[in-house]
Amino acid sequence: MPTAPESSAEQFGTYPATGRSTPTRAKERAAYDRATVHAILDQGYLCHLGYVRDGAPVVLPTLYARSGERLYVHGSTGSRPLREASGGGLPVCLTVTHVDGLVLAKSAFHHSVNYRSVVVHGTAFDVTDPGERAAALDAIVDQAVPGRSADTRRPNAKELAATAVIRLDLREVSAKLRTGGPNEEPEDVTLPYWSGVLPVVTSYGVPEPAELPGQDIALPDYLPPVPR
Amino acid sequence: MPTAPESSAEQFGTYPATGRSTPTRAKERAAYDRATVHAILDQGYLCHLGYVRDGAPVVLPTLYARSGERLYVHGSTGSRPLREASGGGLPVCLTVTHVDGLVLAKSAFHHSVNYRSVVVHGTAFDVTDPGERAAALDAIVDQAVPGRSADTRRPNAKELAATAVIRLDLREVSAKLRTGGPNEEPEDVTLPYWSGVLPVVTSYGVPEPAELPGQDIALPDYLPPVPR
Repeated sequence: MPTAPESSAEQFGTYPATGRSTPTRAKERAAYDRATVHAILDQGYLCHLGYVRDGAPVVLPTLYARSGERLYVHGSTGSRPLREASGGGLPVCLTVTHVDGLVLAKSAFHHSVNYRSVVVHGTAFDVTDPGERAAALDAIVDQAVPGRSADTRRPNAKELAATAVIRLDLREVSAKLRTGGPNEEPEDVTLPYWSGVLPVVTSYGVPEPAELPGQDIALPDYLPPVPR
Repeated sequence: MPTAPESSAEQFGTYPATGRSTPTRAKERAAYDRATVHAILDQGYLCHLGYVRDGAPVVLPTLYARSGERLYVHGSTGSRPLREASGGGLPVCLTVTHVDGLVLAKSAFHHSVNYRSVVVHGTAFDVTDPGERAAALDAIVDQAVPGRSADTRRPNAKELAATAVIRLDLREVSAKLRTGGPNEEPEDVTLPYWSGVLPVVTSYGVPEPAELPGQDIALPDYLPPVPR
């Protein structure tokens, strides 16, 4: 991909807050430091990608990978947003969200969710460099299952030709987080309703091998990955 | 809210496929029947809501509720999209995604994800009817934790005034699903790479009661809800 190792500035700096990356409410939950943003992105593999088509918004779930200060998304060369990115670039908003818990307050009004999200605004461009394309496709596989791409049959010329890769640089980025228990109005504290947090946990089940005749391949060491 | 019980036409009909609700690829994964769409929506509580601001897409995670053929989203009256919906309506795309498993094929190319998603296109309108607003707010609480709203201190006038509710009717709607094991090229089947599905499971942890002095409130029967 030829991505250089992250410099300490990249690891420890902050993204500049812009008009559209500054929330209008709950500003205290916003974060712009790279360490927080990278940690949230690195814990996920599914994003919701938004773009504008005929003046209206479209939001589709898709896989992504982070490599340094770049995000990659792939798809069929026939898919709409990827076709549109091959021109002058496609304005997108890429959002990653982890839900950590349901927050149950005494009042309905103060019910909330503990979560960590990252919102990236920018323009996505088609990746044409063969080396960067191949590395990006590996990164997308490894984002979901670290170590997996090296243990697969790699893409051939026909598959590479059928796959579009777009890149979105991390420039206009914000994280938003909520942690902790419910907020309460002082007069509600003694009300007789249970209050607290119901943790939401995402984990992996037992791997289900494909049923192929005559195969007895040991489960690779990288499975199951660390629950997240 | 005064929503009538679902008629059999609503339960068993299909949403019309339109240009933008028809995928350009993997059409065999698309579904338009209400039963499938409702089941996917009813299993979730978090959506990604997309809208257009200054010509660029914005995608934000937020809670939702389904009530019959209507979706509701709430937020602060100060939040951008909710302010904008109070005029002539806000074009939105509301997407709900459940990840069920990571699909590991012999080839990197055929790696995939088992998932169920619903994409709703339409125009969201501000809800002004007091009864519909109150019922929608209850529904949003109950979407995440069924039965919870009746066991809370209900919103007062000040809280209702601070909360905006928008409605998006289910008219232009599609579901997309992938299930099953990996697809393989015939020549890949005997390759020595493990292949199969790594199930992804979302569940609830042990409820964490708020630390309030002098309270010993039993865990309500509705907690924890059925894992989903």
